[in-house]
Amino acid sequence: MSDEVLTRPAPPAPHPEFDAPSSPVARFGADEPLRLDAGVDFGPWQIAYTTHGTLNADRSNAILICHALTGDQYVASRNPVTGKPGWWDSLVGPGKPVDTDRFFVVCANVLGGCMGTTGPASSDPGTGRAYALDFPLVTIGDMVRAQSRLVDRLGIETLFCVLGGSMGGMQVLQWAASYPERVFAAMPIATAARHSAQNIAFHEVGRQAVMADPDWRRGQYLVEGTRPRKGLAVARMGAHITYLSEGALHRKFGRSFQDRLAPTFSFDADFQIESYLRHQGMTFVERFDPNSYLYVTRAMDYFDLAAAQDGSLARAFRGTRTRFCIMSFTSDWLFPTVESRAVVHALNAAGAPVGFVEIESDKGHDAFLLEEPTLFAAARGFIDSAAAARGIA
Amino acid sequence: MSDEVLTRPAPPAPHPEFDAPSSPVARFGADEPLRLDAGVDFGPWQIAYTTHGTLNADRSNAILICHALTGDQYVASRNPVTGKPGWWDSLVGPGKPVDTDRFFVVCANVLGGCMGTTGPASSDPGTGRAYALDFPLVTIGDMVRAQSRLVDRLGIETLFCVLGGSMGGMQVLQWAASYPERVFAAMPIATAARHSAQNIAFHEVGRQAVMADPDWRRGQYLVEGTRPRKGLAVARMGAHITYLSEGALHRKFGRSFQDRLAPTFSFDADFQIESYLRHQGMTFVERFDPNSYLYVTRAMDYFDLAAAQDGSLARAFRGTRTRFCIMSFTSDWLFPTVESRAVVHALNAAGAPVGFVEIESDKGHDAFLLEEPTLFAAARGFIDSAAAARGIA
Repeated sequence: MSDEVLTRPAPPAPHPEFDAPSSPVARFGADEPLRLDAGVDFGPWQIAYTTHGTLNADRSNAILICHALTGDQYVASRNPVTGKPGWWDSLVGPGKPVDTDRFFVVCANVLGGCMGTTGPASSDPGTGRAYALDFPLVTIGDMVRAQSRLVDRLGIETLFCVLGGSMGGMQVLQWAASYPERVFAAMPIATAARHSAQNIAFHEVGRQAVMADPDWRRGQYLVEGTRPRKGLAVARMGAHITYLSEGALHRKFGRSFQDRLAPTFSFDADFQIESYLRHQGMTFVERFDPNSYLYVTRAMDYFDLAAAQDGSLARAFRGTRTRFCIMSFTSDWLFPTVESRAVVHALNAAGAPVGFVEIESDKGHDAFLLEEPTLFAAARGFIDSAAAARGIA
Repeated sequence: MSDEVLTRPAPPAPHPEFDAPSSPVARFGADEPLRLDAGVDFGPWQIAYTTHGTLNADRSNAILICHALTGDQYVASRNPVTGKPGWWDSLVGPGKPVDTDRFFVVCANVLGGCMGTTGPASSDPGTGRAYALDFPLVTIGDMVRAQSRLVDRLGIETLFCVLGGSMGGMQVLQWAASYPERVFAAMPIATAARHSAQNIAFHEVGRQAVMADPDWRRGQYLVEGTRPRKGLAVARMGAHITYLSEGALHRKFGRSFQDRLAPTFSFDADFQIESYLRHQGMTFVERFDPNSYLYVTRAMDYFDLAAAQDGSLARAFRGTRTRFCIMSFTSDWLFPTVESRAVVHALNAAGAPVGFVEIESDKGHDAFLLEEPTLFAAARGFIDSAAAARGIA
C-alpha cells in the first residue's frame, strides 16, 4: 500500500465539502453558540443535513437517523465525494422500512465531522484557516445537542423516532437520556452505553497511526499542504478488521491468494485479505479528514452514559416514556450482544417499554449496514407499531 | 506516544546481538547451506541458542522449546537486551514442569529473528551491511529445518519433547509433520495448523504501519542510520490488543483514567489502557528489529500445514508415533479453541495418541506465557508420563 498511496495525487485541500457542503446547512452565529461538554460555548457553527419525505401538518412524523463513525448525512442520497448511493439506501426510501412516503427523515453530519458540519477541518473564521487541533474536543452529548438545535430550527418539537447503529446508536441512547420528552421511539442498533476498554484500545492505535505520520504535521496538514495518507490508511485497515467477524473474513477470503496460485515469498499482497484491506485503507483516505478521525473516535471513547449517573445506567433513563427497540448481531465482537443486554436491563429497571432482538448473522459489526432481512423486518415492525401508537397515517 | 518515541535517543545500530549474540551460536558455512522453502540454498548462516540441564548418556532427554513471534532463545536465562528474566522462567527450570534437573533444554532464536540467528538485521558477508530486504522470505518450515540442523550439531537424534506456544506451537506441529521419527512427544499450545484470514489481516496492518514510517527507508534504516520507531510501536500496540481478551482488558483497565479523575478533553492518554499500550509500543521498539517483525509475521501468515497435503491436515501426520498434548485457552480469540480442535481431529484421524486440554482463563492468548496453574499441571503431567514411557529417570 505504502507506495500505491504515495504515488497517487493528493486531492485539493481543504475539501469544498468542509465549509460549503452539497447538502442543506443550518448556520448558527456567534450569538447562538453551542454549549460543549468541555465547558466551551462554541460559535459560530453549522450543521449539514439531508431530509427525505415531507413533514406532516402536526409535525409528528419526523425520524432522525444518526450516522456511525465515518458516516455522513447522505443516508439515502448520492454522496457528493464518493458518488456512491446513500449509506443506508437499503433501509431508507419510499416503501422501505424507514418509509420516506410516510415519514420525514432527517440525517445530519455529526459535530466534529468533515462533511459540512463544523469540525477540525472547518475554517476558523478568526484565522481563515482550518481549526485543526484548535477545534475543541467534542462528545456524543455535544453531537446530540447540536442535532437538537437543528431539530429546533426545523420546527420539530418531538421526534417520532431516533435510530442509528454503532456510534449512531450511542447518539440514539444519548438522545433518549438527554431529551426523553422529545423522543417518541428509539432504535439503537449494534451499540453500547459505554465504549469498552478494548474498543478504546483499537481507537488509540488508529489515532497513533495517524499522528505517527510525519505528514500529519501536528494536525496542521491542511495549512502545510500535506496529508497523512499512510497513517490514516493504516488506522482504517486496523479498524476495518474489527467491523467484520472472523467467520465473515474466513468465508469471504479464507487463505486464498490474490491473482496467483502460490505465495510470492515477498511482502506483496499475496493474500486476498491483504489486497482487500489495502483497498479499504486507500479509498478511505480519499474521503475522510484525518483530524476528524481523531476527534470522532475520541468522542466515542469518552461515551459512558452511566458515568454521569454515579454508574447507574438505569438512572440515565429514569421516568422515560420513550419506547425502545434494541438490536444486536451474534457475530459482532466490537459491540457484542452483552452490551445491548446491559442497555435492555437498564431500561427494564427504568420501567421503559423495550423490545430486544439479537440477530443471527456471521457478518460482524458491519451487519447493521448490510442487507439483513431480520433487521429490516424488525425495524419495519417496530416503526409501524410505534406509528400506530403515535397516530401517524 | 509519537513525541515520546521521537525524543528518545536511538540505540546503537546495528545491535551487537544481531551478529554476535551473548548466547552460544552454531555456525554453518557457505558449504553447509540451508535449503529454504523459497527455493534458495542459503549460507553461510548461524543459529543462536541456549541450553539448560545436561544431555544424558543415551541422549534421550532433550527438550526443544520453540519461541513465539517476538520471543528469543532466552527462555530461562536473563535477556541481554532487556535485562529481564527468561520469557518462560516460570515453566522452565530446576524442579519446574520443564525440569532442567532431569532434561536437557534447548531453545533457539528463529531464522529471520534478530537475536543472533541469521535474519534481515544480520550482516551480509558479501556486502558487510545488513541484509535488510535482500534476506529471503522464510517459513515456519525453514525455521524448523534450521533447528533440525542445530539438533544434529548437538548430536541429538531424537528429541524427547518439542513444545511451544503460538508461533512456537506452529513450529511444534511442523516438527511433528516434518520429522516424525525425531519427535517422541509434542506439546503445541495456543496455536493452529494454519494462520486464519483475521490473523493475516492483523499482521498485514502491522507490516503496513512499519513500512508507512518514512524512517523505515524501504528496509535500509540500519544502513541509513534511521529507525522506524513510530511505525513499529503502532504495529506492536495493535498486535498487543489481540494478545489479550476483552475480559482481561476490562478487568485490568476498564474505563479508568490515568492519573486523573476526569477526561482532559485532549488527545493525551486519558485512559489507563492508552498509557499501557503506548508503553508496550515504546518498550518493544527498544528490543526488536523492524525488518525481523516483517519477516516473522510473514512466516506465520504463510503457515498452513494442510496445504502441502491437498488440504488434508490428517495426512500431514500420517503414520506418526509422536504422542501429543494440545492446549488452548477459553478466552484466546487469536488462536481460539476451534483451531486446536481441528488439530486434535486430524491427529485422531491419523491414529496418533493425543490429549487435549482447554484451559479456562480470561487472560486471552497471552495466557500461555503467564502463571496458569492448569497449564503447568498439564505440562508436568504430560512430560512426566512421556518420560516414563521413554524410560527417562
